[in-house]
Amino acid sequence: MEDKPVTTSEGQPIRCKAAVCRKPGEPLSVEEIIVAPPMPREVRIRVICTSLCHSDITFWKMQAPPAICPRILGHEAIGVVESVGEDVTEITKGDVVVPIFLPDCGECIDCKSSKSNLCSKFPFEVSPWMPRYATSRFKDLKGEIIHHFLFVSSFSEYTVVDIANLTKIDPAIPPSRACLLSCGVSTGVGAAWRTAGVEPGSTVAIFGLGSIGLAVAEGARLCGATRIIGVDVNTEKYEIGKKFGVTDFVHAGECENKSVSQVIIEMTGGGADYCFECVGMASLVQEAYASCRKGWGKTIVLGVDKPGSKLSLSSSEVLHKGKSLMGALFGGLKPKSHVPILLKRYMDKELNLDEFVTHEVEFKDINKAFDLLIEGQCLRCVIWMDK
Amino acid sequence: MEDKPVTTSEGQPIRCKAAVCRKPGEPLSVEEIIVAPPMPREVRIRVICTSLCHSDITFWKMQAPPAICPRILGHEAIGVVESVGEDVTEITKGDVVVPIFLPDCGECIDCKSSKSNLCSKFPFEVSPWMPRYATSRFKDLKGEIIHHFLFVSSFSEYTVVDIANLTKIDPAIPPSRACLLSCGVSTGVGAAWRTAGVEPGSTVAIFGLGSIGLAVAEGARLCGATRIIGVDVNTEKYEIGKKFGVTDFVHAGECENKSVSQVIIEMTGGGADYCFECVGMASLVQEAYASCRKGWGKTIVLGVDKPGSKLSLSSSEVLHKGKSLMGALFGGLKPKSHVPILLKRYMDKELNLDEFVTHEVEFKDINKAFDLLIEGQCLRCVIWMDK
Repeated sequence: MEDKPVTTSEGQPIRCKAAVCRKPGEPLSVEEIIVAPPMPREVRIRVICTSLCHSDITFWKMQAPPAICPRILGHEAIGVVESVGEDVTEITKGDVVVPIFLPDCGECIDCKSSKSNLCSKFPFEVSPWMPRYATSRFKDLKGEIIHHFLFVSSFSEYTVVDIANLTKIDPAIPPSRACLLSCGVSTGVGAAWRTAGVEPGSTVAIFGLGSIGLAVAEGARLCGATRIIGVDVNTEKYEIGKKFGVTDFVHAGECENKSVSQVIIEMTGGGADYCFECVGMASLVQEAYASCRKGWGKTIVLGVDKPGSKLSLSSSEVLHKGKSLMGALFGGLKPKSHVPILLKRYMDKELNLDEFVTHEVEFKDINKAFDLLIEGQCLRCVIWMDK
Repeated sequence: MEDKPVTTSEGQPIRCKAAVCRKPGEPLSVEEIIVAPPMPREVRIRVICTSLCHSDITFWKMQAPPAICPRILGHEAIGVVESVGEDVTEITKGDVVVPIFLPDCGECIDCKSSKSNLCSKFPFEVSPWMPRYATSRFKDLKGEIIHHFLFVSSFSEYTVVDIANLTKIDPAIPPSRACLLSCGVSTGVGAAWRTAGVEPGSTVAIFGLGSIGLAVAEGARLCGATRIIGVDVNTEKYEIGKKFGVTDFVHAGECENKSVSQVIIEMTGGGADYCFECVGMASLVQEAYASCRKGWGKTIVLGVDKPGSKLSLSSSEVLHKGKSLMGALFGGLKPKSHVPILLKRYMDKELNLDEFVTHEVEFKDINKAFDLLIEGQCLRCVIWMDK
């Protein structure tokens, strides 16, 4: 036997498979691409698995800017560090990492503050580029640039992510669970835990029991809420919701002659302590606000409405009722400090992540994942890169 | 010399002078009225002095309900207990008390909670009656009922106030200062202290430097804010504001081609930590919201806009910026526990109340106080009953 030379991809472009969005709304093209080596403060990772979030679908369908083609979507993932660029000391080859769309540079006033999770050095934006250099690390075999998405682009066997967008995690955590913390589940759980600060014994109302709403329920349950009211137009959601701590259900379309807020105020003897809008309808924010208790009620906006849409609230209700309205990206979580805490709570069997994974597919079947999420029976579909 | 019998008014109607609002917007009629004895849990007080608040003027002018005539306005005051009704144990004859429009029953879930100042037993309302019995204690010499105002009606030598609306205070405090804590000054100082929780070293922007706005400045100064930006269309307000801690001024009408929020964001390198809307214009709430810092900025609504007016906020700004919007009656203060604390801080020479009293008149000249406040040169005019 001859000695086989040790080959390394480090510092070299990698040729691998990616699912490229070449036209809005059309099936992703699974094709070979070239992934450049990481620049300083960047990391190239081999994606283990990725899960599909509704934001991927929103941007996949979108025709107008900030949508741009060709692009590699995907932003919920977990990977292994293949190589690091210059000046990367926090992470080394072989580390297991979760990429997170929200940067956490660790150096700016926001990242250093316990009150903010909105990095000032790399402000969150829907950019087609890497955050630090505003360039791409992807090209197709013809040499055409392929754009990034949310600083992650995980629908690829390999991707490059800035150090500000990577959180190192315990490699013992099952990948198909850890990847959920990249976006949706963190947003919901974080909104209950960090943004609202749900207190033990409190009452929570959640408008919209999609993945985010269910994650809010799970977060509220974890915080010790004793009554978690789900509001949805689909009764099936109640059964699903029960797995995440939902204790009561209000069918938004069947409140007789009452508004949802009237029903919730009656059920709770004055209103819920915390109301979460997880649908993305400005009018529902008003209803959530009206549903929360005078004196201390908080309404948290999580749903993404159309650009330019406005929330409208009664001036006198804002003034006279002692309520608060707040919103948060990524549930107010600081990626590098809070995601590891949530993953530990999963390993300690406190946080329920398992029930979110309703489907799993191989990478070649990624378009099936889109169908599943659109059909509405799926909470999270995990897409495995190595299967 | 003959023994003179000890006379007492206790249990008897008292004939005294009051300034009655008989027609909206017309000078108050200073006339003799009859004040009935207090019912159970009520207290009759001899008013020492009363100060004029803009809400008195708003309701004095108002033609439609909840305005009603004849009525005795006035809700910032201090008095001495003349007699108490049955079942009053907390207060006795001779005690010095400050009546406060916001009830604090001490028994309901809100009054027992540290988080709320909105009594559930006697919800705040602009009622023409006493809170517990929905009847009046006033009539004129012809026997016609005269209505109450905000549960206080202090433009009278004697008035009857529910125990829920009375806070006992240290009799050593000068009356013309203590009466300010009944409404306006408490609202502003409380909004900074309790509603916003202004932190030492923080930056505050105040939209509208009327009495409430100046009281917010004073509260923010007391909480250790290091930069207090006043926004007004009247430059003179800056000089007045300096007495209450205002450190910077933005002339809302002279920002060249910039919005006020752009100016504040530039001045502060990202926005103020806390913004207070003290004018009562829905559009200004948007500007205040835009002026506060991403990540942790809070906007507090204190201004009273027209009934039915709506606040409009950008849905994406609420979602993406990590800001909060809140409102509060009486600055979020719990009358019986927080007003004595503020009065102690006055006595300890920490809280500046003196500068709020710009004018003083005798009771017979009460209509002059209205003129002074309307003219705009007056912060607070104290009306002395015994002069």
